[in-house]
Amino acid sequence: MFSQTTEYALRAMACLALRPEELVPTPTLAEQTKVPPNYLAKVLQQLSAAKLITGRRGVGGGYKLAKPAADIKLLDVINSVTTVSRIQSCPLGLSSHGSRLCALHKKADEAAAAVIAVYDGVTLHDLLMDSNPNKPLCESKPATMTVSARR
Amino acid sequence: MFSQTTEYALRAMACLALRPEELVPTPTLAEQTKVPPNYLAKVLQQLSAAKLITGRRGVGGGYKLAKPAADIKLLDVINSVTTVSRIQSCPLGLSSHGSRLCALHKKADEAAAAVIAVYDGVTLHDLLMDSNPNKPLCESKPATMTVSARR
Repeated sequence: MFSQTTEYALRAMACLALRPEELVPTPTLAEQTKVPPNYLAKVLQQLSAAKLITGRRGVGGGYKLAKPAADIKLLDVINSVTTVSRIQSCPLGLSSHGSRLCALHKKADEAAAAVIAVYDGVTLHDLLMDSNPNKPLCESKPATMTVSARR
Repeated sequence: MFSQTTEYALRAMACLALRPEELVPTPTLAEQTKVPPNYLAKVLQQLSAAKLITGRRGVGGGYKLAKPAADIKLLDVINSVTTVSRIQSCPLGLSSHGSRLCALHKKADEAAAAVIAVYDGVTLHDLLMDSNPNKPLCESKPATMTVSARR
């Protein structure tokens, strides 16, 4: 439904949330998230521009979350690479419609509201604390256990 | 939230649903939907490939719906230019996840389900019959009245 960029941004953020105290090098992130490195580099630039992550170049460089995972909502991540917002006025700019949306754009607004309801209330921290034994991006049991111990 | 292509496809279909018995020329559709003609031509090709519209080239040519508006759901239109579907298995292909989605992809699946719930139950005909006085794409009152009389 969302663009691939959105999926990749969410993966990258989940990956960084699993290692909150480390600068994770882009190649490591690319491997963990299974995102082509060049594509990932652009996504990371967008996340950085949105002040969700901070980075350092050079040897030992990489990216980390710019704030605690509990302060980053999934909707923030999505909105850093696309726009999910309610429809306030006619997208065609029809003067007779204005803020009184037609049935088509009312439906589109309803869909936007539903998506916002899903993503706005959930932080990266919530994802990792979920009772689901499968943590985002974690392939193996030991990795899951390390994460649990760290938090 | 959705791509511009999706918005344009929905506009084009709403526009054709307003004139179900006419072949509407692409320039007219472009004007009514406020979509750049070249962009619209590509969207119309996709709608045609999905068998939602049929067209005829040349003088007096244009496009019309391939079936009654009551038989075309908004979700059909959206899925002709993008894919909105539930997440059946781990998008990263992690063997330890499989169909047991992690918390991130459970949320993504929840959002997809919410969007499908909004668009799956609504046909183009429903949009036009909506009690909302603002019909999709109609700028003026007389146009709205013509539509009401025609149906």
